[in-house]
Amino acid sequence: MAEAQTLESQKASQACGILRELDIDCWLLWVRETMQLRDPSLDLVLGSDVIGPTALLFTQDGERIAIAQEHDAAGFPEGLFDRTIPYTAGIAEPLSRELHRLDPQCVALNYSVDNDAADGLTVGMLELLRRILTGTEYPDRFVSAGPLVERLRGRKLPEEVERIRGAISVTERIFDDLRAVLRVGQTEREIAELVRTRMRELAVEPSWDPSYCPAVDAGPDKEFGHAGPTGRLTRPGHLLHFDFGVRARGYCADLQRMYFFGRRDEIPAPIQEAFAVVREAIESAAAFLCPGRLGYEVDAVARDVVLRHGYVEYAHGLGHTIGRFAHDGGMRLAPLWPIFGERPKGIVEVGHVFTLELGVPTPEHGRVNLEEDVLVTADGCTFLSHPQEEIFCIG
Amino acid sequence: MAEAQTLESQKASQACGILRELDIDCWLLWVRETMQLRDPSLDLVLGSDVIGPTALLFTQDGERIAIAQEHDAAGFPEGLFDRTIPYTAGIAEPLSRELHRLDPQCVALNYSVDNDAADGLTVGMLELLRRILTGTEYPDRFVSAGPLVERLRGRKLPEEVERIRGAISVTERIFDDLRAVLRVGQTEREIAELVRTRMRELAVEPSWDPSYCPAVDAGPDKEFGHAGPTGRLTRPGHLLHFDFGVRARGYCADLQRMYFFGRRDEIPAPIQEAFAVVREAIESAAAFLCPGRLGYEVDAVARDVVLRHGYVEYAHGLGHTIGRFAHDGGMRLAPLWPIFGERPKGIVEVGHVFTLELGVPTPEHGRVNLEEDVLVTADGCTFLSHPQEEIFCIG
Repeated sequence: MAEAQTLESQKASQACGILRELDIDCWLLWVRETMQLRDPSLDLVLGSDVIGPTALLFTQDGERIAIAQEHDAAGFPEGLFDRTIPYTAGIAEPLSRELHRLDPQCVALNYSVDNDAADGLTVGMLELLRRILTGTEYPDRFVSAGPLVERLRGRKLPEEVERIRGAISVTERIFDDLRAVLRVGQTEREIAELVRTRMRELAVEPSWDPSYCPAVDAGPDKEFGHAGPTGRLTRPGHLLHFDFGVRARGYCADLQRMYFFGRRDEIPAPIQEAFAVVREAIESAAAFLCPGRLGYEVDAVARDVVLRHGYVEYAHGLGHTIGRFAHDGGMRLAPLWPIFGERPKGIVEVGHVFTLELGVPTPEHGRVNLEEDVLVTADGCTFLSHPQEEIFCIG
Repeated sequence: MAEAQTLESQKASQACGILRELDIDCWLLWVRETMQLRDPSLDLVLGSDVIGPTALLFTQDGERIAIAQEHDAAGFPEGLFDRTIPYTAGIAEPLSRELHRLDPQCVALNYSVDNDAADGLTVGMLELLRRILTGTEYPDRFVSAGPLVERLRGRKLPEEVERIRGAISVTERIFDDLRAVLRVGQTEREIAELVRTRMRELAVEPSWDPSYCPAVDAGPDKEFGHAGPTGRLTRPGHLLHFDFGVRARGYCADLQRMYFFGRRDEIPAPIQEAFAVVREAIESAAAFLCPGRLGYEVDAVARDVVLRHGYVEYAHGLGHTIGRFAHDGGMRLAPLWPIFGERPKGIVEVGHVFTLELGVPTPEHGRVNLEEDVLVTADGCTFLSHPQEEIFCIG
C-alpha cells in the first residue's frame, strides 16, 4: 500500500499527523486560478491546477476532502481524497455544509507574516471565505497554518530527499562538465549560456530565476548578487564563481563553486587561505548541526570561524531550507537580525535539508564563496552534495 | 524614445495614466519571494524576481519608485524606475519615508474578491504592511487596485497584441501540422504527445496546465473538461476535439478545433448542423462585439443563437480575456450567474482581447466546440485567429 502512494498522498498523510501534533482540527487550503497565483503549499498535496474556487480540507482524523468545480475535480488524481465533492453553481453551499459537519474548533489557513512559504492565501480569498461563512462561528476560529506548513515543508520524506539528491547530482555533473569547456577570455554571459545548454540537454530547469541561475561572477570586481551574468571576461590568475542549481522532478539543488584560471601552484596564497577558512566554517557548522539546535546557534558557529580568522563576516544567513523551491520556507540558519524575523529561532529536526553557504573577501582577488547541501539525520547531518575540497583549476 | 521602451516600461506608463483616470494617487505593488508566489501583476511592470520584501510605487504624476533589498535591486532593468532605493537592514524605514513624502490620499493594493488577477496580495503581507505603517494614517487609505489592474491587463498595447498574434500563429501551425500525422487508432495520449513534441521543437510552452493543454477529446463519449487525454481511440466516423494554445514571448493563445475521421461527404448531417450553429453563434457575437457593450450582452447574442436552434445552452461563459495568462483576469463575456460575480457587467473597451468559445451537443456524435480569439477595435472587433470555417477531415 505505502509504496504505491504518490508523494502528494504521503505528504497529505504527513499533514494530518502534524495537525494532531499541533492539535489543530483542520487545515483548509483555499485557492482559485492557480495558474495565475499558486499557493506554495498546493504542490505538496495536489499536483494539478484548478480554475474555480477550491477547498482542500485535511483533518486530525486523517480525513481528506476536496470541494472543487466539476471540471477541476475531474482532473484530481484517483485516491488522493477520501471524498471529492464537485460543484457547478457555487462552492458556498457544499463548503459551508462540510465545515458544519466537521465542526472544527480551529481552522488553519495559509497566512503568515514571517514565513512566506506559508503565506499563500490572498486578501480577496480570505474576504470571500468570510462572506461565505457569514453568520457562522468559523471565521472566529481561523488560525495561521504557519507552524503546520513549516513542519510539512521542513520534514522531508525519503522520496523528497531522493529527488533533491537527484537534482544535486545533475548540478554537480554540470559543474564537472564545465571544467572541460571553460576558457580564458569567455564572458560571464557566454559561460551562463554553456550552463543553460547543458540544462536543456539534461532536461532540467533552473532552481530559481533564470536571469541569475546560474549566477556567474568573473574576476575580483564583480559584486556577487542577483545582477546576472555580464560581459566581464575570465582572465589568467582570476577566480570564477558560480551560484547555481537545477530543479529535477520538482525538487531543487543550490550550490556555489569556485574555479581558478591557472595551475594549482599559481593560486595566490590569500585565495588559498580564504578557501580554507570558508571550508573550515562549513565543516564546523556541519559538525555542530543536529536535531535540537536552534538556527542562530548553527549560524554562529560558522560566523565565529570567519571572524576568528580576521575576515569580515558574511552579510546573509548561513543556510536556508531547500525543497520544491530553492528557498523552501521555514526556519533559517541565520543570525537574529530583524530581516530574518523569528525564523532563526526555529529548531533543527531530522529530515531538514539546508544549504550551508558563506564566503569571505580577499583584498585583491574578490570573494571566495562556497555552498553545500546537507540533510539532518538522527545524530548529526550528512552532506548530500560532494563538498568542494579544492578550487577547480582551468588550464 | 518610445520605441526603445521595454514592454514593462510601457505598461508602467499606462498604469500611471489609469491612476489619473481613476483618480487614485498611487499603486503599491507589495511582494516578496516571488519565485514561490508571484502576484499576477508583477510580470506586467517588472520582468524579474525578488526575494526580500519589495515595494513598487506608481503615482498619478508618473513617478515610479522601487524599494528593494540590495541584491534584488541590482537585478532591476536600467531605466524602469525613476528611483530605485536599495535597503539592507529592512524596508520599514525607506518605505515609510517614501509614503510620507508622496502623502497619497489613497493607496491601491492588489486585493479583490471578484477579480483573481487583481488579487495577488497575501494576508501576511497586508499584515506586515500594516505593522510597518502603524501609527500613520496610511492603512486607512488602502483601496482595492481591482479597477486599475482590470484596465491595465485588459487594454492591450500594440506590442502585447503582436505577441498574442505570434502565439496564435504558432498554435495554428501546430493544428495544421497535425492534419498530416493524425490517424485512426491513435489514443488521446499519443495525440497529446505529438502536440507536445511540436511545442518543444518550436520552443513554446503550453498556455495552461500541461496535463490538459492540449485537451484532446476523441469520440462521442468523452466529456470535455480538464480530465486530460486518456487511452480513448480515434475511430472512423468519429470527431476529435482540441482545446489548446501556446504561450510565446510571455503571451497566450487559446483555441478549440474539430477534426473528423473520414471524408467530408461522410460527415453526418447532425455534426454539420451543429458546426454551422456554433459558427453562426461566434460570428453573431463577433458582429455585435464593440466598445461599450456589456459582457453579458455579448454572451447573450451567442447564447440566443444556440437556443433559437433548439440546442442546450453551453454551461460556461462565451469568452474571457487572454494575455499573459490564458485566463487573463478582468471582465467576462458571460451570463449574470453567481459564479461570474460582477465580471459580466464589465464594459468592452478598445484593446481587449477575448476568446469566443462555445459548443453544442449532438445526440450521437458528442459535442461540437469551437473557440476563436478576437481583438476589440474602435468600431467592432477583428479576428486574431483564422476562424475554423469547416471541420478538418482526416483520411
